[in-house]
Amino acid sequence: MEKEPLLMIPGPVPMPERVRSAMVRQAINHRGNEFGTVYADCVRVLKTAFGTGNEIFVVSGSGTASMEAAVANFGKGEKIACLVNGKFGERLYKIAQRYGKAELVASQWGTPLDLAGVERALKEGARMVTMVHNETSAGIRNPAEAVGKLAREYDALFVMDGITSIGGDTVEADKWGVDVAIVGSQKCLAGPAGLSAISVSKKAWERIVPDLPFYLDLAAYRKNGGKTPMETPFTPAVPLFLALREACLIVEEEGMAARIARHRKMAESVRAAVDAWGLSLFPVTDSLHGYSNTVTAVRIPEGISDSGLRGAVKKMGIEIAGGQDELKGKIFRIGTMGAIGAPEILATLTAVEYALRKNGAKVRGSGAQAACEVLG
Amino acid sequence: MEKEPLLMIPGPVPMPERVRSAMVRQAINHRGNEFGTVYADCVRVLKTAFGTGNEIFVVSGSGTASMEAAVANFGKGEKIACLVNGKFGERLYKIAQRYGKAELVASQWGTPLDLAGVERALKEGARMVTMVHNETSAGIRNPAEAVGKLAREYDALFVMDGITSIGGDTVEADKWGVDVAIVGSQKCLAGPAGLSAISVSKKAWERIVPDLPFYLDLAAYRKNGGKTPMETPFTPAVPLFLALREACLIVEEEGMAARIARHRKMAESVRAAVDAWGLSLFPVTDSLHGYSNTVTAVRIPEGISDSGLRGAVKKMGIEIAGGQDELKGKIFRIGTMGAIGAPEILATLTAVEYALRKNGAKVRGSGAQAACEVLG
Repeated sequence: MEKEPLLMIPGPVPMPERVRSAMVRQAINHRGNEFGTVYADCVRVLKTAFGTGNEIFVVSGSGTASMEAAVANFGKGEKIACLVNGKFGERLYKIAQRYGKAELVASQWGTPLDLAGVERALKEGARMVTMVHNETSAGIRNPAEAVGKLAREYDALFVMDGITSIGGDTVEADKWGVDVAIVGSQKCLAGPAGLSAISVSKKAWERIVPDLPFYLDLAAYRKNGGKTPMETPFTPAVPLFLALREACLIVEEEGMAARIARHRKMAESVRAAVDAWGLSLFPVTDSLHGYSNTVTAVRIPEGISDSGLRGAVKKMGIEIAGGQDELKGKIFRIGTMGAIGAPEILATLTAVEYALRKNGAKVRGSGAQAACEVLG
Repeated sequence: MEKEPLLMIPGPVPMPERVRSAMVRQAINHRGNEFGTVYADCVRVLKTAFGTGNEIFVVSGSGTASMEAAVANFGKGEKIACLVNGKFGERLYKIAQRYGKAELVASQWGTPLDLAGVERALKEGARMVTMVHNETSAGIRNPAEAVGKLAREYDALFVMDGITSIGGDTVEADKWGVDVAIVGSQKCLAGPAGLSAISVSKKAWERIVPDLPFYLDLAAYRKNGGKTPMETPFTPAVPLFLALREACLIVEEEGMAARIARHRKMAESVRAAVDAWGLSLFPVTDSLHGYSNTVTAVRIPEGISDSGLRGAVKKMGIEIAGGQDELKGKIFRIGTMGAIGAPEILATLTAVEYALRKNGAKVRGSGAQAACEVLG
């Protein structure tokens, strides 16, 4: 078998060997002490990464499953204000349309959120606000603290998709007033794809509407999560839990502060390269909105082919991401999440630089060398 | 680390090393040729196991997720007749209550289904019938073909939970008129816990009600499953797919007929042991209802402690299952699913025989020796 390509995309990301090896184990009963300990280990570390004292549950389903769980359990039938400046904000809006009276508060992808718009919606009775903290589709970091403050002012629940920020960037769910936060296993935590975790505040529990869905009924998760040993209501994806536990232990060993600093430095090094090349970052930032610290979105220079560019990089065994939906062909994205470090970044930047030149782009200076200035 | 206990329960079951080793691989992008091939391999083999030419989708969620997908996508708002003679039939009824007008057609656990009752419900306009083919909670095999015929007569959809029969017992979904069939990954297929697969007939597609849920929206599964390479709508549990593919290839290599014959023989050998011990099987069978060929449910003799019995077996490194809910303390269950064979069965029966004696049960003859007569 050929070596797997190096995934420098906004998830899934390469897993440390220790994480992968945990999955090779023989099946264990998921109603028993060992599984309970595995689950509890995950929750302990995730609480630090979420910045929360609230209960956390691990769902055997991707981030989208937990997004649905958040909206369905706590927003059913309610007016829901959905802040959107990218693909995943749109996904939350689509889910909200199915369960409640969804109100779209949209900005152009990659531009600042419409905070005045969300305040209007709150004044008009919105009981839930949804926001993506780190919008990977556009490489922008949205102002969770400001939105949380607004939601609290109007006594609305604040649902924050932290799928690609938690574990790699600062998240203070409790301090920011986040009622429901979500993370994915295959992003900054560097675990396998297939799990997500969700935290639930006291205020959210008070508003739970028990009914739909069944597999994502968080009341059942709460009941079983409270048992000793901890359990899930339905059969969990056991090998993925074993791997997530290892991923969480690695996070704990590194320490959250060090891990966040490392992620910031990695993203900064990619931004330094973009600057050295003379290319432009895609997002429009302001005093509240910053560049993502886990993925960098770069405008493709006029006349350069997206597939030519990414194809040339892939030929060297490295996958970077293109734009999604309306951004197809307009941007490329480099993920810097999880267990990767300087070697992966330097290889990627060198390959991208070559691919840019090969495809006819004018490249001002060496991005890889500029990245070394940050990483060295 | 101590050796994992031998799981002789109705799932999860021990996985062959080849299946487990498949999960150790580095992360791959789930939007690409390799993942598409993995998914397609699973579907090809599953079609044989289901006995269907219909589309099949693999869901990153347990059997319960696919049960919900079946009811939610094709029975929303409809009158749904739920045949129940055990815990998993009840689960389908609970899901149906959330999405439609559920009608309970109940028998005592482990006794034949009320076919007259379901026909009454169909006459009164039920548009969907739900049934568990192999009710592990009671060790009974339900008459899928007869129920399928009734459903067809009244133009209702037939949803069959084949979670613990498909891959280990005869299933002919198309011939029997099953519109939606479901299997779990960690049962007769001997894969890891965390995935399920669902087949959908043309008749079912014609009745799809698009709306809820989002993560389990089968229209989205269909759209992405139809792409080349095959995709899932949301991030799949990639390591579990890699393992399921190996599990499916093993099924293909063994051949469905041989695999079914092996499962029958294994269950028969356990029943021979129960008979030799002078104990009673729990289910009440008739011309249509048989003993499960993947799990054997045995009455615990009067005065014998369930926890004493199973505890003594566990001390020898083997886990058998107790009764669930109303059957707690009344039965024990031995699963014979997947990749296990004579050695595991003989060890289990020998340990159970010892545990029975140790706990004061009168045991007539040697169950393990009787099992050899079947297995040898």
